[in-house]
Amino acid sequence: MGKKAKTAITPTREENYPEWYQQVIKAADMAETSPVRGCMVIKPWGYGLWENIQRELDAMFKATGHRNAYFPLFIPLSYLQKEADHVEGFATECAVVTHHRLKKNEDGQLVPEGELEEPLVVRPTSETIIGEMFSKWVQSYRDLPLLINQWANVVRWEMRTRLFLRTAEFLWQEGHTVHATQECAVDETMRMLDVYADFAENYMAMPVIKGEKTEAERFPGAAQTFSIEAMMQDKKALQSGTSHFLGQNFAKASDIQFLDENGERVHAWTTSWGVSTRLIGGLIMTHADDDGLVLPPRLAPTHVVILPVTHNADNPDEIDVFCEKIATALRQVQYNGRPVEVEIDRRDMRGGEKTWSWIKKGVPIRLEIGPRDMADDSVFVGRRDKGPREKYGQKQADFIESVADVLEEMQQGLLERARAFREANTITIDTTDEFTTFVQGDADGFAWAPYNGSPDDEKRLQKETGVTVRCIPLGQDAISSTCVLSGKPATQRAIFAKSY
Amino acid sequence: MGKKAKTAITPTREENYPEWYQQVIKAADMAETSPVRGCMVIKPWGYGLWENIQRELDAMFKATGHRNAYFPLFIPLSYLQKEADHVEGFATECAVVTHHRLKKNEDGQLVPEGELEEPLVVRPTSETIIGEMFSKWVQSYRDLPLLINQWANVVRWEMRTRLFLRTAEFLWQEGHTVHATQECAVDETMRMLDVYADFAENYMAMPVIKGEKTEAERFPGAAQTFSIEAMMQDKKALQSGTSHFLGQNFAKASDIQFLDENGERVHAWTTSWGVSTRLIGGLIMTHADDDGLVLPPRLAPTHVVILPVTHNADNPDEIDVFCEKIATALRQVQYNGRPVEVEIDRRDMRGGEKTWSWIKKGVPIRLEIGPRDMADDSVFVGRRDKGPREKYGQKQADFIESVADVLEEMQQGLLERARAFREANTITIDTTDEFTTFVQGDADGFAWAPYNGSPDDEKRLQKETGVTVRCIPLGQDAISSTCVLSGKPATQRAIFAKSY
Repeated sequence: MGKKAKTAITPTREENYPEWYQQVIKAADMAETSPVRGCMVIKPWGYGLWENIQRELDAMFKATGHRNAYFPLFIPLSYLQKEADHVEGFATECAVVTHHRLKKNEDGQLVPEGELEEPLVVRPTSETIIGEMFSKWVQSYRDLPLLINQWANVVRWEMRTRLFLRTAEFLWQEGHTVHATQECAVDETMRMLDVYADFAENYMAMPVIKGEKTEAERFPGAAQTFSIEAMMQDKKALQSGTSHFLGQNFAKASDIQFLDENGERVHAWTTSWGVSTRLIGGLIMTHADDDGLVLPPRLAPTHVVILPVTHNADNPDEIDVFCEKIATALRQVQYNGRPVEVEIDRRDMRGGEKTWSWIKKGVPIRLEIGPRDMADDSVFVGRRDKGPREKYGQKQADFIESVADVLEEMQQGLLERARAFREANTITIDTTDEFTTFVQGDADGFAWAPYNGSPDDEKRLQKETGVTVRCIPLGQDAISSTCVLSGKPATQRAIFAKSY
Repeated sequence: MGKKAKTAITPTREENYPEWYQQVIKAADMAETSPVRGCMVIKPWGYGLWENIQRELDAMFKATGHRNAYFPLFIPLSYLQKEADHVEGFATECAVVTHHRLKKNEDGQLVPEGELEEPLVVRPTSETIIGEMFSKWVQSYRDLPLLINQWANVVRWEMRTRLFLRTAEFLWQEGHTVHATQECAVDETMRMLDVYADFAENYMAMPVIKGEKTEAERFPGAAQTFSIEAMMQDKKALQSGTSHFLGQNFAKASDIQFLDENGERVHAWTTSWGVSTRLIGGLIMTHADDDGLVLPPRLAPTHVVILPVTHNADNPDEIDVFCEKIATALRQVQYNGRPVEVEIDRRDMRGGEKTWSWIKKGVPIRLEIGPRDMADDSVFVGRRDKGPREKYGQKQADFIESVADVLEEMQQGLLERARAFREANTITIDTTDEFTTFVQGDADGFAWAPYNGSPDDEKRLQKETGVTVRCIPLGQDAISSTCVLSGKPATQRAIFAKSY
């Protein structure tokens, strides 16, 4: 056996996947835990990625007719209680504001004072407070559809947290819409599910399966919940976005009624849908490798980093001018509708260390430029989708001419690789025996198996095996089979997997 | 006397300024109060303005080397206490989280449960929690300067609230930076004050005076506070942005130390600076008139609204095609570095009502297009900086060719008008007698008067007259005079005014 290749991240995915994940985030300087229980700090490199995610998604929301607004952080207890299932779902993990000032006690310690008449919950989601406002805004069928989105922070007091994947406070967007008919609301629910799938695949390079959640996994208060599910490199599923058809549940709870075209006062139909900073966790676990983060070019805060190699140069200033010229030329190039983002790293540190810092940050392309490259009017190119030592020289004009194509090739390559990985780790199951073999083995990957079960069946499965029903994929062919959980006749398959 | 002109907003500014302000916001559909005490809902038209403010400011912050990050919403009590003045300043208006879940009591009512060991304060500002993180991030002089900005919501439990101007929850940005030397930190403080002044004047068309706050008005914990102050149409001052030199106060409180170039461990110097959704209140009170909102073109979510006039048309579809063609051509035009934003309003409502809805929303340019305009290849133009009935016909090609220039002319016109208004309502005062006349009269507008007073002098003045020292303007010529408050020798003037 050859010597083990040295990797930038210790441990490797193989050695300890959860710890590898934490180390990738640390090595890329994306985020860290804070002293506030369960709350993370998103550092500039992680936040830059979130800004790009926001920019692209926001454009997609606006292109589908939505507008942004902002609603209160706090929800009065009485509002949360308006929808019975909803409050059940969130009551056990709410940050509760009970006082509105501080005073010094006899020991000189600050203590809460000014008790509120009604406690306020820090929003875990905003259906109830937004519903209250919508009930005033919606009066006539002419006011519909009402298509609103909010970018905000929310708080769910999770006991076990993990950077990006599950934190007490997280950043997200929540769409909330009101429609005149069930059909319009269902259309909206599916439209936004499609937007999420489009974004995941075409920007994050993360292939997803669109499907409906079972009753057990439905959003508290929803009539139907749909999700996009992605496979991480440890073969577990990550629910990456959800779109809810809320029926008339919240319209009734918040009294959203309108005069229809016949002059009758009727309840509206609503939807809600959201994605969060969890997407960043999904992006890391889809693409990062044992050398650190790998960024899909369409979302990378920096596309090309230029590393001047001046330590042996007679003419460091000339190299700097040459680098600046290349940076300027690159910034004239459009990639994905925007200028190529270039950074010149002039930090005073060892070349190897500097190069590795950008590998760990996942920047798509590194250019090393020293005296010989300059003399040859060339650049020395390293691509993040190739091995760290697999570099090549290229005339600078050729590099600039091809950079947008190379970035797009990398983008597509990441998507194809992730899709191939998912396909290689997906099995189709037809019988209960096969299913038993799956769940009693590693239960790695996705199993498509006949499903017609109940919440109790699913609870038992999860307890015994750690496997859950991720979704019932949309657009599948009808089958005539037997549910692997309940033994009842099944006409469709669900995806079974372990999950985050 | 002639008949009183009818205005879109009732009451007028003259009749009842505070109520006029509320009615402008309502008529433009920008925001409204929510059922959550002191918290507002920012509706799409108001939020679109905030998005544009964010976009421009964010670009300015990035151009000056800052990067965005995100820190926890909650601050442990013990952190807030680290800086004595700081906690004093915010303790009386903090939302306090004391529990982390809800349970049903015997009456079936939800009550807070799971008391926290240490209460958490919803951030009123983030110096202490960010300082805690910075103390880990800053180790060496090579880590400096550290230039971070955060876009976030904050909560200050204000007792008397007013939409945009003072709300319990508001949206803002807070810059937080760390520097190796006092000089660098002071430079940063002034640089960001300049950025704010540049933004206020060149985007909001709101002229401001840059100055230093007196000790009485300093940010709790700051060594020096600087602000930009604008004059509203009721001649009161609005503090529109602040930039704080924090000295080593917070560096000591949070233990932000670093190894300097000599290998010595020393405390760093920090700054913080912020503007908020209050800017929107300032924009309204600077430009809106008795017909509603007036938007500076550089921040308008929509530059041109096209109103097809089809009620008497034989060929409504043709008019629609004509309007669409003009919209497409307008979107090819660049204004202020971005495409002109155009909306076609096809709502089914009376023409007059529709036109007035856009006047009240403050859209810079309205185009009415009916059969005769189309036959003449023309548009009928209404400008928001002219009277509502002062419209003119123009060949559509000429309109498109000149639209960017017209928008910019309007932008400059708004700034000039606001500056002229401020100048007309500013007096220079040299003696205590003159000052007494000012404060015992209406005390309208800005009075530049010799100042060398104490917090007690200012408190007395405010109590007796409602007038406060807004700032000591930067860059003024030295004087040799006597302070109008204390009678002590004064070498500089302060601005005295009533304020928001």
